[in-house]
Amino acid sequence: MKKAVVLFSGGLDSTTCLALAKSEGVDCYALSFNYGQRHYAELNAAKRIIEKWNIPHHIIELPLGQWGGSVLTNKNQDILPSSQASTGIPATYVPARNTIFLSFALAWAEIIKTNDIYIGVSAVDYSGYPDCRPEYIAAFQRMANLATKTGIEEGKIKIHAPLIHLSKAETIKLGLSLGIDYKMTVSCYQANANGHACGQCDSCVLRKKGFREAQSVDDTLYYS
Amino acid sequence: MKKAVVLFSGGLDSTTCLALAKSEGVDCYALSFNYGQRHYAELNAAKRIIEKWNIPHHIIELPLGQWGGSVLTNKNQDILPSSQASTGIPATYVPARNTIFLSFALAWAEIIKTNDIYIGVSAVDYSGYPDCRPEYIAAFQRMANLATKTGIEEGKIKIHAPLIHLSKAETIKLGLSLGIDYKMTVSCYQANANGHACGQCDSCVLRKKGFREAQSVDDTLYYS
Repeated sequence: MKKAVVLFSGGLDSTTCLALAKSEGVDCYALSFNYGQRHYAELNAAKRIIEKWNIPHHIIELPLGQWGGSVLTNKNQDILPSSQASTGIPATYVPARNTIFLSFALAWAEIIKTNDIYIGVSAVDYSGYPDCRPEYIAAFQRMANLATKTGIEEGKIKIHAPLIHLSKAETIKLGLSLGIDYKMTVSCYQANANGHACGQCDSCVLRKKGFREAQSVDDTLYYS
Repeated sequence: MKKAVVLFSGGLDSTTCLALAKSEGVDCYALSFNYGQRHYAELNAAKRIIEKWNIPHHIIELPLGQWGGSVLTNKNQDILPSSQASTGIPATYVPARNTIFLSFALAWAEIIKTNDIYIGVSAVDYSGYPDCRPEYIAAFQRMANLATKTGIEEGKIKIHAPLIHLSKAETIKLGLSLGIDYKMTVSCYQANANGHACGQCDSCVLRKKGFREAQSVDDTLYYS
């Protein structure tokens, strides 16, 4: 049975990515981060999903919040939908976040002796973050193979991003076909302690659009 | 004045790298990690050097030790010189270490708004770690420019590795010309609490060889 490290936030995309890897018979090792994100509710969602699926799970404490650089780690700034904010990469961008996450995944992959890492990024219905694009994933994979003992001695490390060319609606359809209960997942950037969503932020807007386009019932709980 | 993040362990190489950047008029932001390394004395050395040079310094707490995967984060394993151990990449290799370190440097660089990162790796007199080679540094730089808002919107991120083609002796000569007091630095993998060195590990062997070839006085304090 092939082993893999799967980056897992408890959100819609990474839950679908994890379910997909599981469905393909991969022995999944889920990796989450408590990086000072204001939507801590996603980590609670992650824990509940992991408990249900009963797979190894590691949560790493990362002090990214103390640096600032993102509204996602700063409770004193409002999260505006990007349509109301400046153009370009939105204020919810966290500097080098996926690079830091993938670097830890790479370390864990070496330690559990696997060449495979999964990440649930998408470059279709996404927030414009540079570290969700195919060219970034390819460059990280290339770097990873030069960086590590595994890459040098054991053969090719592969960064799997199976959702990268899927729209949110396609991801949702895929997840529903795999039996995911999306009510368990949290996407909202400012979810409250119960995991209820704001319905306004970019992440909520993309999620709502995805369910609408997939013609599926969206039973996400909203607080506003 | 150009700003840069400088990875800084308190060892011989990164101290030379920091001194070199300072001598070129760079406004240095030093970044260290408490990653569970058994040679915690290097962090004390880092703090003393930073205090003397009076530059901004950030120490990040990273839970790499809990994962295992290296004798460098496991106090229960002996550190043998690689000449007495197996061939290939030595047991002191820490999975994905420089990739994790550079990822945090990348985040901090974005936050303080600079495109420049310094790392004191060398591919000449080194321990055979894959993440010290020029092809790795080039691949990380390429990835970093695709990963970040800085890389996309502000122009080229550069990973400076000014010692990469220098022998240990050449690095020492450079550092002495910059006025470094190498007694303040700690290289040993199993330095004691006072920062005294074992004289036996790969890092000590390389350091001794460097001073010998540089025909310089090595006033490192050894406990054995």
